Amino acid sequence: MRIQIINPNTTAEMTHRMVDAVRPLAAPGTELIACTSAFGPPSIEGHYDEAMSVPGLIEQIRLGEANGVDGHIIACFGDPGLSAAREVAQAPVIGIAEAAMHAAAMVATGFSIVTTLGRTKVIARHLVESYGMAGRCYGIHAVEIAVLDLEANLSDTEERLVDACRRAVAQDECGAIILGCAGMADLVARVGDSLEVPVIDGVAAAVKFVEALGGMGLRTSKHGDYAAPLQKSFTAAERLSA
Amino acid sequence: MRIQIINPNTTAEMTHRMVDAVRPLAAPGTELIACTSAFGPPSIEGHYDEAMSVPGLIEQIRLGEANGVDGHIIACFGDPGLSAAREVAQAPVIGIAEAAMHAAAMVATGFSIVTTLGRTKVIARHLVESYGMAGRCYGIHAVEIAVLDLEANLSDTEERLVDACRRAVAQDECGAIILGCAGMADLVARVGDSLEVPVIDGVAAAVKFVEALGGMGLRTSKHGDYAAPLQKSFTAAERLSA
Amino acid sequence: MRIQIINPNTTAEMTHRMVDAVRPLAAPGTELIACTSAFGPPSIEGHYDEAMSVPGLIEQIRLGEANGVDGHIIACFGDPGLSAAREVAQAPVIGIAEAAMHAAAMVATGFSIVTTLGRTKVIARHLVESYGMAGRCYGIHAVEIAVLDLEANLSDTEERLVDACRRAVAQDECGAIILGCAGMADLVARVGDSLEVPVIDGVAAAVKFVEALGGMGLRTSKHGDYAAPLQKSFTAAERLSA
Amino acid sequence: MRIQIINPNTTAEMTHRMVDAVRPLAAPGTELIACTSAFGPPSIEGHYDEAMSVPGLIEQIRLGEANGVDGHIIACFGDPGLSAAREVAQAPVIGIAEAAMHAAAMVATGFSIVTTLGRTKVIARHLVESYGMAGRCYGIHAVEIAVLDLEANLSDTEERLVDACRRAVAQDECGAIILGCAGMADLVARVGDSLEVPVIDGVAAAVKFVEALGGMGLRTSKHGDYAAPLQKSFTAAERLSA
Amino acid sequence: MRIQIINPNTTAEMTHRMVDAVRPLAAPGTELIACTSAFGPPSIEGHYDEAMSVPGLIEQIRLGEANGVDGHIIACFGDPGLSAAREVAQAPVIGIAEAAMHAAAMVATGFSIVTTLGRTKVIARHLVESYGMAGRCYGIHAVEIAVLDLEANLSDTEERLVDACRRAVAQDECGAIILGCAGMADLVARVGDSLEVPVIDGVAAAVKFVEALGGMGLRTSKHGDYAAPLQKSFTAAERLSA
Amino acid sequence: MRIQIINPNTTAEMTHRMVDAVRPLAAPGTELIACTSAFGPPSIEGHYDEAMSVPGLIEQIRLGEANGVDGHIIACFGDPGLSAAREVAQAPVIGIAEAAMHAAAMVATGFSIVTTLGRTKVIARHLVESYGMAGRCYGIHAVEIAVLDLEANLSDTEERLVDACRRAVAQDECGAIILGCAGMADLVARVGDSLEVPVIDGVAAAVKFVEALGGMGLRTSKHGDYAAPLQKSFTAAERLSA
Repeated sequence: MRIQIINPNTTAEMTHRMVDAVRPLAAPGTELIACTSAFGPPSIEGHYDEAMSVPGLIEQIRLGEANGVDGHIIACFGDPGLSAAREVAQAPVIGIAEAAMHAAAMVATGFSIVTTLGRTKVIARHLVESYGMAGRCYGIHAVEIAVLDLEANLSDTEERLVDACRRAVAQDECGAIILGCAGMADLVARVGDSLEVPVIDGVAAAVKFVEALGGMGLRTSKHGDYAAPLQKSFTAAERLSA
Repeated sequence: MRIQIINPNTTAEMTHRMVDAVRPLAAPGTELIACTSAFGPPSIEGHYDEAMSVPGLIEQIRLGEANGVDGHIIACFGDPGLSAAREVAQAPVIGIAEAAMHAAAMVATGFSIVTTLGRTKVIARHLVESYGMAGRCYGIHAVEIAVLDLEANLSDTEERLVDACRRAVAQDECGAIILGCAGMADLVARVGDSLEVPVIDGVAAAVKFVEALGGMGLRTSKHGDYAAPLQKSFTAAERLSA
Repeated sequence: MRIQIINPNTTAEMTHRMVDAVRPLAAPGTELIACTSAFGPPSIEGHYDEAMSVPGLIEQIRLGEANGVDGHIIACFGDPGLSAAREVAQAPVIGIAEAAMHAAAMVATGFSIVTTLGRTKVIARHLVESYGMAGRCYGIHAVEIAVLDLEANLSDTEERLVDACRRAVAQDECGAIILGCAGMADLVARVGDSLEVPVIDGVAAAVKFVEALGGMGLRTSKHGDYAAPLQKSFTAAERLSA
Repeated sequence: MRIQIINPNTTAEMTHRMVDAVRPLAAPGTELIACTSAFGPPSIEGHYDEAMSVPGLIEQIRLGEANGVDGHIIACFGDPGLSAAREVAQAPVIGIAEAAMHAAAMVATGFSIVTTLGRTKVIARHLVESYGMAGRCYGIHAVEIAVLDLEANLSDTEERLVDACRRAVAQDECGAIILGCAGMADLVARVGDSLEVPVIDGVAAAVKFVEALGGMGLRTSKHGDYAAPLQKSFTAAERLSA
Repeated sequence: MRIQIINPNTTAEMTHRMVDAVRPLAAPGTELIACTSAFGPPSIEGHYDEAMSVPGLIEQIRLGEANGVDGHIIACFGDPGLSAAREVAQAPVIGIAEAAMHAAAMVATGFSIVTTLGRTKVIARHLVESYGMAGRCYGIHAVEIAVLDLEANLSDTEERLVDACRRAVAQDECGAIILGCAGMADLVARVGDSLEVPVIDGVAAAVKFVEALGGMGLRTSKHGDYAAPLQKSFTAAERLSA
Repeated sequence: MRIQIINPNTTAEMTHRMVDAVRPLAAPGTELIACTSAFGPPSIEGHYDEAMSVPGLIEQIRLGEANGVDGHIIACFGDPGLSAAREVAQAPVIGIAEAAMHAAAMVATGFSIVTTLGRTKVIARHLVESYGMAGRCYGIHAVEIAVLDLEANLSDTEERLVDACRRAVAQDECGAIILGCAGMADLVARVGDSLEVPVIDGVAAAVKFVEALGGMGLRTSKHGDYAAPLQKSFTAAERLSA
């Protein structure tokens, strides 16, 4: 089974870091294909960044489909372009926020999310609501570390993340923590070791759930709203930049 | 007051038709600036079309801001890119679905939506939920006419639209009808004449609400999640097409 | 366009103060007609006050309709008698709580309400829920100043209001503040100057939204539940007092 | 125990009919006091009728309190003035819609409501939502018989009511029926005999629940929002009529 | 009227204590029959305890039905086995959590729950949601006293309970308190004397509501989901223990 | 990885049939252990059957834990005893209804459920709500075939099931179908071949999701409400039967 992990920002090091982090969790027959958007924002920290990342993401989805992959992962915690990607793809598409929340719902009655910048909290909040998880999400917190600074000082990042997670558990009385950024994928093990509750990384969850859907023989529904986009003559952008 | 009406698809005739339709409703001091996306899909009929229309829309928002407009309207019933646009803009930004639903809530206890293709109904459904209108939306219906076919045979379109609206009123017992496409803006008067309930066009509603916000001196909140996008070096797309 | 602003309590000075405050915001062709209930409570601070204010409010609505006004505003933050007024009126009727929340929803992802007495918070809470704004209202706070004391010591009132708004922004992380009393209409500008988020007065919002509905040609739906009251022989009260 | 049953419309025959209907259900020590509003609408069939009935209702509540009654019932299915009445009263106050829904929730997983005129359905709908019963209410139906016509031709009324209830059970798959008008109190036994599901009359339910609250020693909470109205000098209406 | 109060744990002293506490509240003709589960857990403090208590509870329900009782009460705040019991019973069945919440909804706009161990809070939370009380429940708190320790040191228990209730009222601004354990039934009067808001014991509420349903002639709906269990040959457990 | 599939009814043939059906989907290293409750009901078709099945289910969970399994599946569509089982287990526990809904949410915007007897529809309805899936579940339908009759006449069953699924797709406009009974596990492939939307069997979904959680290293949270049951001396039942 070949699964495409798409980092919808353009920072390839981040892609490799996250894919390396989850590679050990993949099933024996699973090949993880690391893909980075060829254009768009270098990190995604707001509605605008999200929206501008989608065309680059979709291009990767199309390449993956042409390449016959068996599943796609959108590796950004806002799940940008998820519905659009599902229209384009035949294979399953999973966002990492969605994956993390589904996983949390299977091991705890309530979870809290610890994410990067405070300005992204409202994105998580809206996802929680649209995924039907409002009754299970007990809190959303930010460590106020920018996405691309997560690995600048790893020991400091880890400490601040652990502190934020501990506060969330104490204050929210949640039974699990979701790390709200694909760039935290390589920290989940160490953070988890410091906490008494399960700590969930959405990239790992998405990999395992794509494998799961594949194992069930499920593909994206093409009936109704995820039906393939209608064929149209798009006007090409001469140049797309921020 | 200068208000930018952005058609986020690339079909300029549609832009002109809708702006001409609402021009008589604008206040004396209001100038309506018709803008059409320079690139992207020629019509928006699904999640993919929506997502791909956003960069072109954002470009227009930026141009409008640079041009000092006092408000922006996203003239597509899915309100694509609304949150992103609000991050980019200082002036108010209103989507026509949002505007139509707020207007309906002020004149009726419940409304139904009549839109173009069935495949877009789920988009309307999700907007209804995220705008807190689930208790007021009694039904979502499609006439199964593609966006660009709306004006192909106007008398036939009008008849089918009136029929669909009448069925919606009878079946849903709703007190108002929302027309679910910017391309129906020029039909609202005639459809309204055939029905005993208010019929609402979102383009008109958005124009009047932007005027209203302007009159209150309200601009988009820059505190928290609509804060301006962080400055970043985007990688430009060499070419963006479908 | 002639818009009737009805203060449903009997304190005429309060009526004039609020109408004077919003007059500068009215469109050139708009005439604001200040109306005060001829009987009922001198201020509205609870369910009982609200309920007892409605007959006086309805009398004003009837007078306004007879007088051919183009819209009615219920200028009390509990929106008392809103549905009843809509049955009686052909022209649009807007409550100021409703108006403020719709305006807030167009410029921020979340708002908090700062109102007068704590005992009225539950009224705001129920409005928030019935208007579908539960996901957008991040907090409801009281300054514990009675309605008629708002202007007793204006500088003190302003200071306490600004303090309460600042605390709300810090604690709730909201993107906008709604002032929860018509008697705060003349304070909104100064309070707004002290805050970094939009501050919204419902009287102003209602004026602009009535203008907006008028501009769209929308009137109250007479289909179904806002249909005119059935003709009946009421038994007159010999005398109605608290 | 003395319980005041207030018919908030002015039709005394209807009051007597409903009180006679529920008298056999009262506990041995319970005295039912039939009260009819001294002024206001002769029947309540819409938002306006409701709103205009409240002052007359409140007058009865005050008389009842002065008279030392142990509980009050608002015997109109819209529960008009319920919150206001609770501010005024020390003794418990129960509305018949509320009572019927609580009773239904204790004997069935879902109920449907069969009421008089279609124009009142939205009132029931809003009560269902505000009472947290949206998940349990499977349908709201109207027989299109005006309140004061219910007893005009009793055999015809009964037949139409039974038919409507049967259709509701078949269509909604509900486990109980709530009769949505105090004027149906004397029909509940016969209608119930014709159906295989429990049929609930709110007047009876309210009597028994007031007895129950009395037996528990519970009175209306005076902490916070049901606190007694603040003392104020109301301006009396010279004359109140429709 | 004969009402069976079933303590679904096996601690008979607790049963007697709670039944003695509510006996004075029963109507003259009401006989309260104290029943204790013959097998299962000695106290119920979690999902497992709840689930394991249900067969013992059902046995008592069956015995009560065979004995012709007129109503059943499940006297554990998690309302374990409520739906199953309703399938088995013809007479009404009420859980004490459900009863307490319905009673609270009739006397206050919002309530908080004070229960025993923190680990049971999620059970209360889920009940609140499934009973449609989420908008009325302002907080859930634990005193961290195990069920069977409630009476070990009564004066200490009372003091801690009063403290917890006072904090809940101050912090949640609730208008009523619900005691979240049948083992608190004998403390409700003294706790209530120390607070300015109504304090509600679910056992008392359930007794009065069963009397109420009986008085209305309502029995459990046998239409649809509470229909009697289908006849089947169960395999008996040789021995059932924890 | 060793996964215990527990059929919580006592019909071993049904257990084998469902485990045989999903065995081909298991990952290479996965061993599926078929377990049947040793006591309780032979099929589960209502609240009572569910409740009575839980002790037998819990016994199997305990045996599985003692045996060191890596995950547990509750193979009945009502997910009976799920929370209790999670308290008892260290390894993940997944119910098949839960699993099917999570899977459906990943491939379609909305699903419908087709189950056995109409009397179980309310159970599915309540699960949908408590799992936060109300916005995604477009319908719940019954074929009115008893659980143990599913394989009595397989061709007839398949035909009726396909018919019911087709009607659900047409009427609900759903993008996926969930089969609402573990006894349908061996029919999913053939039913799926007859439909144009994905058809989901919860047993298969649960197997793949337990594998997924195992692959992520996630185990049931022992913090808070899924904490292990407190040690208590249960009173054993001498004999437990229906």
